Amino acid sequence: MATSTLQDLLIETLRDTYHAEKQLVKALPRMAKAATSEELKAAFNNHLAVTVEQVNRLEQAFELLGAPVRSKRCAAMEGLIEEGKELINEDIEPQVLDAGLIAAAQKVEHYEIAAYGTLRTWAEMLGHTEAAELFQTTLDEEAEADETLTQLAESGVNAEANSAGVEEEDER
Amino acid sequence: MATSTLQDLLIETLRDTYHAEKQLVKALPRMAKAATSEELKAAFNNHLAVTVEQVNRLEQAFELLGAPVRSKRCAAMEGLIEEGKELINEDIEPQVLDAGLIAAAQKVEHYEIAAYGTLRTWAEMLGHTEAAELFQTTLDEEAEADETLTQLAESGVNAEANSAGVEEEDER
Repeated sequence: MATSTLQDLLIETLRDTYHAEKQLVKALPRMAKAATSEELKAAFNNHLAVTVEQVNRLEQAFELLGAPVRSKRCAAMEGLIEEGKELINEDIEPQVLDAGLIAAAQKVEHYEIAAYGTLRTWAEMLGHTEAAELFQTTLDEEAEADETLTQLAESGVNAEANSAGVEEEDER
Repeated sequence: MATSTLQDLLIETLRDTYHAEKQLVKALPRMAKAATSEELKAAFNNHLAVTVEQVNRLEQAFELLGAPVRSKRCAAMEGLIEEGKELINEDIEPQVLDAGLIAAAQKVEHYEIAAYGTLRTWAEMLGHTEAAELFQTTLDEEAEADETLTQLAESGVNAEANSAGVEEEDER
């Protein structure tokens, strides 16, 4: 009923993404606090500032599309954030926790990469050029954030997790 | 408690991913049935065959890692699949539904891209070379599936959704 045209689906996806980003604004400070590595803390705090700006961009997009700013519950992002919370509450080596936090954050980034890719493509097809550019800007930022996390995962942070967690397997 | 080393976290993530893939095996036939475009139906059916093979690969990975084959409920994937189900049940133009199904499937693919990237990196760090190769093979397949969906989204399928759903906006 609510969704019958591509424009409707675009607005609905925008609402879903808006809810996802707002949940992330609440989750990132918890993740920064839980992180051990200073680099990872900095990456989460930096991404919080970026995410706040992305929320603003979504609000601009609502205006450009002539739709009221509204959230729609995003069950997938709730699940992703729930997984991060469970991790923080586990009894776990600090460096292993860092590795897990990176993994949780990369799932969130990939969710957003898929969402903004869809928003950008649909906005372009419907002739909403300015909104499409906003979505592209955020998409580029999300891809960059994912790349930063991959570098952290492959370099220091996971190496520390490895040596902290599995010293006994290290004798080969 | 359960998770204290990177090896434990790897096994836990493997269980989570196993649950996610098994849910996807159940969801893909529904998505293929709901799709209108023959190309999209074929893409979903093809990805079902690929996913069944990916489930087998995960079972091999459990064996290589010396862990029993077990699932752990993956709330994020449940949320993603729930979103797809809601879409199928909406009153929606068939071509617009196709666009929405592509978007839902791309979120699933990106979830898996993040998951397999993590599994591959951790397996490498822990010296599980053979398991890392299995994860890399699946990661490549997921990236390819995402690319196929992007092509479908940018070409025929969304163009049809556009002309079906927003004819009234077409007079500029």
